[in-house]
Amino acid sequence: MRACIAFAVILLTMACAGWARAEDGYDLWLRYRPLPPAQMKLYGGRASQLVLAADTPTQRATRDELQRGLSGLLGRDIPLTQTVLHDGAIVVGTAASSPLIARLHWDTRNLGSEGYLIRSAVIDGHAATAIVGNSDIGALYGAFRFLRLLQTGQHIDRLDLHDAPHLTLRVLDHWDYLNGQVERGYAGASIWDWWKLPDWRDPRYTDYARANASIGINGSVLNDVAGGATILTPTYLQKVAALADVFRPYGIRVYLSIRFSAPIEIGGLKTADPLDPQVRAWWRAKADEIYRLIPDFGGFLVKANSEGQPGPADYGRTHADGANVLADALAPHGGVVMWRAFVYSQANPEDRAKQAYDAFKPLDGQFRANVLVQVKNGPIDFQPREPFHPLFGAMPKTPLMMEFEITKEYLGFATHLVYLGPVYEEVLSSDTMTHGKGSTVAKVIDGSLEGHRLTGMAGDANIGTDRDWCGSDFNQANWYVFGRLAWNPSQSSRTIAEEWVRMTFSNDDAFVKPVVDMMMGSREAAVDYMTPLGLVHLMGPGHHYGPAPWDASEAEADWRPVYYHRADKQGIGFDRTRSGSDAAAQYAPPVAAQFSDIQQTPERFLLYFHHVPWDYRMRSGQTLWYELVAHYAQGVEDVKRMRETWRGLHGYVDEQRYQQTASFLAIQEKEAQWWRDACIAYFQSISGQPLPPGYAPPEHSLKYYQSLSFPYVPGFSSW
Amino acid sequence: MRACIAFAVILLTMACAGWARAEDGYDLWLRYRPLPPAQMKLYGGRASQLVLAADTPTQRATRDELQRGLSGLLGRDIPLTQTVLHDGAIVVGTAASSPLIARLHWDTRNLGSEGYLIRSAVIDGHAATAIVGNSDIGALYGAFRFLRLLQTGQHIDRLDLHDAPHLTLRVLDHWDYLNGQVERGYAGASIWDWWKLPDWRDPRYTDYARANASIGINGSVLNDVAGGATILTPTYLQKVAALADVFRPYGIRVYLSIRFSAPIEIGGLKTADPLDPQVRAWWRAKADEIYRLIPDFGGFLVKANSEGQPGPADYGRTHADGANVLADALAPHGGVVMWRAFVYSQANPEDRAKQAYDAFKPLDGQFRANVLVQVKNGPIDFQPREPFHPLFGAMPKTPLMMEFEITKEYLGFATHLVYLGPVYEEVLSSDTMTHGKGSTVAKVIDGSLEGHRLTGMAGDANIGTDRDWCGSDFNQANWYVFGRLAWNPSQSSRTIAEEWVRMTFSNDDAFVKPVVDMMMGSREAAVDYMTPLGLVHLMGPGHHYGPAPWDASEAEADWRPVYYHRADKQGIGFDRTRSGSDAAAQYAPPVAAQFSDIQQTPERFLLYFHHVPWDYRMRSGQTLWYELVAHYAQGVEDVKRMRETWRGLHGYVDEQRYQQTASFLAIQEKEAQWWRDACIAYFQSISGQPLPPGYAPPEHSLKYYQSLSFPYVPGFSSW
Repeated sequence: MRACIAFAVILLTMACAGWARAEDGYDLWLRYRPLPPAQMKLYGGRASQLVLAADTPTQRATRDELQRGLSGLLGRDIPLTQTVLHDGAIVVGTAASSPLIARLHWDTRNLGSEGYLIRSAVIDGHAATAIVGNSDIGALYGAFRFLRLLQTGQHIDRLDLHDAPHLTLRVLDHWDYLNGQVERGYAGASIWDWWKLPDWRDPRYTDYARANASIGINGSVLNDVAGGATILTPTYLQKVAALADVFRPYGIRVYLSIRFSAPIEIGGLKTADPLDPQVRAWWRAKADEIYRLIPDFGGFLVKANSEGQPGPADYGRTHADGANVLADALAPHGGVVMWRAFVYSQANPEDRAKQAYDAFKPLDGQFRANVLVQVKNGPIDFQPREPFHPLFGAMPKTPLMMEFEITKEYLGFATHLVYLGPVYEEVLSSDTMTHGKGSTVAKVIDGSLEGHRLTGMAGDANIGTDRDWCGSDFNQANWYVFGRLAWNPSQSSRTIAEEWVRMTFSNDDAFVKPVVDMMMGSREAAVDYMTPLGLVHLMGPGHHYGPAPWDASEAEADWRPVYYHRADKQGIGFDRTRSGSDAAAQYAPPVAAQFSDIQQTPERFLLYFHHVPWDYRMRSGQTLWYELVAHYAQGVEDVKRMRETWRGLHGYVDEQRYQQTASFLAIQEKEAQWWRDACIAYFQSISGQPLPPGYAPPEHSLKYYQSLSFPYVPGFSSW
Repeated sequence: MRACIAFAVILLTMACAGWARAEDGYDLWLRYRPLPPAQMKLYGGRASQLVLAADTPTQRATRDELQRGLSGLLGRDIPLTQTVLHDGAIVVGTAASSPLIARLHWDTRNLGSEGYLIRSAVIDGHAATAIVGNSDIGALYGAFRFLRLLQTGQHIDRLDLHDAPHLTLRVLDHWDYLNGQVERGYAGASIWDWWKLPDWRDPRYTDYARANASIGINGSVLNDVAGGATILTPTYLQKVAALADVFRPYGIRVYLSIRFSAPIEIGGLKTADPLDPQVRAWWRAKADEIYRLIPDFGGFLVKANSEGQPGPADYGRTHADGANVLADALAPHGGVVMWRAFVYSQANPEDRAKQAYDAFKPLDGQFRANVLVQVKNGPIDFQPREPFHPLFGAMPKTPLMMEFEITKEYLGFATHLVYLGPVYEEVLSSDTMTHGKGSTVAKVIDGSLEGHRLTGMAGDANIGTDRDWCGSDFNQANWYVFGRLAWNPSQSSRTIAEEWVRMTFSNDDAFVKPVVDMMMGSREAAVDYMTPLGLVHLMGPGHHYGPAPWDASEAEADWRPVYYHRADKQGIGFDRTRSGSDAAAQYAPPVAAQFSDIQQTPERFLLYFHHVPWDYRMRSGQTLWYELVAHYAQGVEDVKRMRETWRGLHGYVDEQRYQQTASFLAIQEKEAQWWRDACIAYFQSISGQPLPPGYAPPEHSLKYYQSLSFPYVPGFSSW
């Protein structure tokens, strides 16, 4: 007995050492810490043995994850067995991989190739839980779901649930360069160690795949859309193939961003004209070469004729011509092209918000079947708030892929706590009205509205070499919610936030509720202290850090904040009605009518669609000027309250993660105050209006805010 | 009993989870894993309680480290007590902090301010171990030494040892830029998160300080010598101060690299002339500003008038003039200037190897008392092998600080296993003969030869954001051996390697012996496959990756490999005798005579000092050409043997670290073969000599090796 206690003490010490170190965020939401004894006991009877085949890499990954998860959560190893010996067996697999499952004769047609069902059943006379898919990957997804049930403290007796992804392609877009920089990345350098690949396969690559598979992400675009052509050279394709090998067991395909002029740069051709036979042949040969190395290669992502990138327009060809030459090269192998609609040009005098629609709508129906047009959530560029993109619903013959930004380029980089679930949900639930009421953006991208089977959602990743992957613990929630919504775009972002909090921090309701509330309110707070009432693009030039509503230094007019807010002595806002750019007319008639009428326009979009007098009466009865100041002030107040909330939760989480969040919230409050003060100081200098009573004046002069410079802002590729 | 076992199993599971994760190299040599039971038992009686004061930050750091270390190694917490209650007490502190220690009345004069003694003693009638210093830092160093005794399996009864550093300044030079890049860094980005400082203090900064203190490093130059002046602006000095606060309890002072033209760039002056009164005043004011924020600021490191950096020569002033203006500004606060002697210029037609000596020797005696001239180990630039720098012993009136490179700029970057202990030891034990036999470089830099009290050693750090800090587990040994030799330059690099292996991997002699042998042979292997027989500077242009002996593309003649090897139809080597540049004459007469005489010159330096005919008879009786090929081949054979050695040790270490080293050795063998083949192919094209019988010809043609290009080499600041 004494020996045993000594032994236990030794283990306890080791455990604590490991434990302490572990709380650095590396585990993400796959944090399999021992559950409270009561819960262990509750689940114990339902997890007595594990029955599954381990013949394929995916089956072995499923076995390893269940063993790792269950042993961590329940504090004991669950024996692997061939048959069901007693109650509490967990039987995992497909009808093909498991005779036990085959004998159940369950109808799994509605699960598709990636879905799963989890059902309590009696197998060989014993109470068991069956996790069943039509494929190994389906079973793996089911295993992660089963673990999530335990992680979030739900009952696992009398289970009968099934789920399947609503979208085909659920993809992370990495904006990583081959030199290790990450465009708009705030979590360190690229996690791809290109230099040591393919020889050295960092174990972190496997953990990356585990995390993605756990939320259903099935694709990864490894490199930035503005990168060069080197990634397509044989040397680098070897490296890409090594990553594909690591990801494959987890159902993740690799994709590459390609440079449209690659046939010239690495192919030695004189042109990249998509209609040139040599160019077409070069892309076909390149695709063949890639698929010899990576049989399940996903395809290409392309940014063409936008922000200086080469493209088909350089040869007088259309985006469809450009996409189709790639599509034809990939089609024989089952690959797809994700062609970005984020195009605009300084040469085009038209309102930047209108250019993507103008360029792509006429091309509807001209793209090959294996092309998706990838559209950002809004017409500008991932602003704290924008209306949904008018292309959604406007190209019924073309599969439109949603592009959300997970990295917080415009939302406080690594440090600000801004949960993006509400951003995504707001856009997905927006009604395009293109097929009458209920024609939501979600239904456009899941294909149900226009009958597309090829569908997808892309998220611009916030992942880097930081130990916690995302630059902060709360940034992990944005990776998580993206994946969960890509699986099913009609889910509630609050439900997903709660799930994440329970898995990442604690199941204690005294902690969960306030933290979820804080997360759900965090985005509106950021909108208020950055760009309230439909303002957009007020941030610093180039690096996008901090407020610079006064800035007119950028070379391109439509990169200048003044282009967007149009503040003058009379008022503020961008007139996008008939009397202005008429961008509102790009939406379906009922929506266009609403946005064109200042009375009907939701105030959250007011200054996006209308140039409004400073003394305009808002619904509150107050003037626009008053409301503008009030929103800026509210944003700061909200962050103050977030800090209080977190202070009140000390002790519910480990010290390391508590302190980091506390420090970051302090930075956020300081910067929210800076945004409020700088923007009010500037707009006041234009409006000439006195500050409403009760509102503190800016801490410094407008000159001071204009004088600030930031030579080493992270995530800015010109460093 | 069953409950206890269940409990133990739970803990075991947790422990293993933690354990597995822990073996990612993050712990460095402070890897406090449970010792074998027998050893635990042995030490247990000598570690029953901990008696120390915890009133100062350093005392608390000492307490925390001993608790962490002892609980980890012995598997149980050691109680803290005020008095000695029974046998086995560990009493730590100074006569001032501990009445128990004061009552011992031990003579500690020879310990200085940073030394310690560890002695078994009877205190209050109980067998105890006393760890005593004259300062808190001395006691902290003693605590680390005591833990090392346990980590390396030594006896701790009847202890009576004392130690004190032989050098005053033991400093890491970080080549980190404010944008996160690390010049010649192969372990990820800078560990200084300048962007989030001073608000966020990454816990990693504390672990960095712990690791340095454990080997006696007491200074850290935070930024690269080629960085701009921004580091001296108020915003960044706040960030520097935050790091200084974290390091202070561990006895580490921060230093900054400064840009000589800072008075112009951030001071708004028209000149940076060191004799200009405004410039002198500006530096004084800047120093005052720094010391208000950082009372124990260490001082400045300067690279002036070298490789494009500004300096006093821009104003017709000497290096002494430049150093002294800074020294005068720092002196009132006790700061020092570390002025680099690594200066050469393309404008100077003289042999680059001679230029530093020519520039600095005449200035001996002209520097202020708080200036050290920092000299690289050799005259060229951290090559795999160079003779010691002729300045050592040539400036008796000036403290010369040794600069070693820890990062493997010329030795295979992150992946090659090259233990640098022998490089350092070879240089330190070299005899300058300046005061007769025994005037070793070690005695020059420890001040004993010329009676200097201000002494120092700098190491160009190999630290980055990689989880394992240094880019590989074995690279950690180079950080470790640098620190241990900076503490005492006369130690054996083999002894230090063994220490490190025991702490980092295992105390099992079946593992320790072969690994130490492998490490000790690794440097000679690299010399053989890269630059044998005194060759230097054969690497690729700019990025310094891989062989390019043919390269003449660099703008500066003395950046071109062909400048260094001078191979022609007749022979190879750089004539540095009277008939050539006469660089040999810069050494003391006996050394000069030896290096000037081809017969007396050690063959390891042959081609550094002499241009030698291909058919020259070596001591082996073989021709130079034969020996050159034989050395290149031997280097590859040695790496093959290193791989076999490591293969034979599978199971002695955790799988993750085993596999990484195995992968890296595979890369090293591939690249050693490349070096051998490319160099032999090139030199054969010059010599026209047939390959000696029994030696395989290069795998590819010379053309092939010359055609290789590497667009994204890490650590190269022009990316």
